[in-house]
Amino acid sequence: MTADSRLLEALKRHRVDKTPVWIMRQAGRYLPEYRAVRRQAKNFLTLCKTPELACQVSLQPVQRYPLDAAIIFSDILIIPEAMGLPLIFNDSGGPVFAHTLCSEKEIRALPTIAPEEQLAYLLEAIRLSEHELAGRIPLIGFAGSPWTLASYMIEGQSSRTFQQAQTMLHQQPQLMHELLDKISVNVAACLNAQAEAGAQCLMIFDTWGGLLSAEHYLEFSLRSIKNVIDRLHHQQQQNARPCIVFGKGNNLHLEKIADSGCDAIGIDWNVDIKQARRRVGQQLALQGNLDPKVLLASEQLIVKAVNKVLSDFGPHPGHIFNLGHGILPNTDPEKVAVMVEAVHAFEHNGF
Amino acid sequence: MTADSRLLEALKRHRVDKTPVWIMRQAGRYLPEYRAVRRQAKNFLTLCKTPELACQVSLQPVQRYPLDAAIIFSDILIIPEAMGLPLIFNDSGGPVFAHTLCSEKEIRALPTIAPEEQLAYLLEAIRLSEHELAGRIPLIGFAGSPWTLASYMIEGQSSRTFQQAQTMLHQQPQLMHELLDKISVNVAACLNAQAEAGAQCLMIFDTWGGLLSAEHYLEFSLRSIKNVIDRLHHQQQQNARPCIVFGKGNNLHLEKIADSGCDAIGIDWNVDIKQARRRVGQQLALQGNLDPKVLLASEQLIVKAVNKVLSDFGPHPGHIFNLGHGILPNTDPEKVAVMVEAVHAFEHNGF
Repeated sequence: MTADSRLLEALKRHRVDKTPVWIMRQAGRYLPEYRAVRRQAKNFLTLCKTPELACQVSLQPVQRYPLDAAIIFSDILIIPEAMGLPLIFNDSGGPVFAHTLCSEKEIRALPTIAPEEQLAYLLEAIRLSEHELAGRIPLIGFAGSPWTLASYMIEGQSSRTFQQAQTMLHQQPQLMHELLDKISVNVAACLNAQAEAGAQCLMIFDTWGGLLSAEHYLEFSLRSIKNVIDRLHHQQQQNARPCIVFGKGNNLHLEKIADSGCDAIGIDWNVDIKQARRRVGQQLALQGNLDPKVLLASEQLIVKAVNKVLSDFGPHPGHIFNLGHGILPNTDPEKVAVMVEAVHAFEHNGF
Repeated sequence: MTADSRLLEALKRHRVDKTPVWIMRQAGRYLPEYRAVRRQAKNFLTLCKTPELACQVSLQPVQRYPLDAAIIFSDILIIPEAMGLPLIFNDSGGPVFAHTLCSEKEIRALPTIAPEEQLAYLLEAIRLSEHELAGRIPLIGFAGSPWTLASYMIEGQSSRTFQQAQTMLHQQPQLMHELLDKISVNVAACLNAQAEAGAQCLMIFDTWGGLLSAEHYLEFSLRSIKNVIDRLHHQQQQNARPCIVFGKGNNLHLEKIADSGCDAIGIDWNVDIKQARRRVGQQLALQGNLDPKVLLASEQLIVKAVNKVLSDFGPHPGHIFNLGHGILPNTDPEKVAVMVEAVHAFEHNGF
């Protein structure tokens, strides 16, 4: 079995020779070669919007490590930007919306985007990356979940509590639904366009669903994720693009996420993967969930922790090894090599 | 039944006439009378360390609302301060440690505190408050969990990820255990002294346990909480002081927390209280868990949400109504009155 098919076969819950592995934020700041390219670009957004550079950094980790997937270098905030919310950069270099959504009128005026025009740079980066990868391993396309994007659009920037967004949800739930519906249409269009451009797997990042109560999570976050999945073209096509839903802090809802129509759930490091597997059963694949901070420990502890995740999952089909959240910027790249090697070297007892 | 016994009876899982209610951070910034007293004090710590002022603000919410408990006004960082880590205040007024723990030598040198001396101001504030309350309602004493305090002591201040603390945990687990053991002894001594001074119920706030993987949560956070509970004098006395363990993001571990020896678990707003009750069964009481952001909504929505929490819990003994996290500073005090009234007015069908 080649690396090309390993991820896609595992997503179908077929048997594979080695557990496939890739890393959330694998094209990122922990790599010196990424930082070198990043310095060439005016800011983070320029990097996303220059297809040659985005392609270059997308390929860096797969040139360095025998990973089983590449993920296109991009940012979840490009969809809100394409919807008319300009991004600026604050002192620490983080993206911030120059203007935040606050009125009904503004929300109702939000446009439906045409990804082929407004996100042409992303689609071109995907085509370039696919060309370079030449079928060796699959390329993952992605977008933020509607609730996560709505949180940023209302709050303007990252926040521990997203209080403005939460206030709108509580005070004007109907308006929040309207906003989420608008975003869902655009997220689905963006994912469909990425599949069209060559992405072989799609991922939805629900970073902030975990801030909601159980009831609101289902009503606002998961419902809009389901709306996106329902609109993905792959569902009506033979040439299916599997879809992975990752959520931070959504561990209480794994059974419900499993019913959303996705092919795999990305789980964070807080959940016990043995318990997660038991809860979702044979229904779909699981991706995860090594604590990213384990990569700050010694090589010996890393191998031990990797083996624990793999043996906890057990000798069942349908596991994609990953971290339980994005890799930390201060991770030593040598430690990543140790982790990837340990995943591929692992053999389940009696299997 | 008087308000005096309502909380304590519910903690024993006895039947009560009305579900008792109090509010995490009820003595706090959302109250204009608190802000007026706060302006008199040089900083937040002065307020904690001036028994008359700490007593005054502890009583403010119970003078305004028919709450079923008061909680002493204090801060979890006073224990690390008493252990020799001086607190300063940054530009936004938040407490920060002037020096953080980083070496083995420093950790080994940490002292065992004598609460009667180093936390005399806290014990005096409790005695004053108890005198003023005159038995009308119980007073709650509290402390941070050892892991939560260790996180602050290593990191120096609040953080989204507590990366330094997590790095020590991963790289030097044995040293982390030593630190946690030292803190546990001091936390238990502080809680015992509060009980001695008159606090009728004790609470442990495990704010940052939820950042850990399942395995590490049990090994580092919950184990040290259990160490604290094992050292509480109430366990050997007739005049027992019930102990509530609140944890943010620990929802996956409710069954394990229930086995820690505590009398009640405080649950955050992310968990479905119906599910939580089913999982801990008849073993102990539950406290929670209205989403604090509900108080930003209309009165009608607040009453609806309060009724939902109460009916989801069901007509079983052992419920203490509370928010699922601290009350937000921008909450309208009038809305709090609506919530408290709705809790006391609620009647379970057929009960």
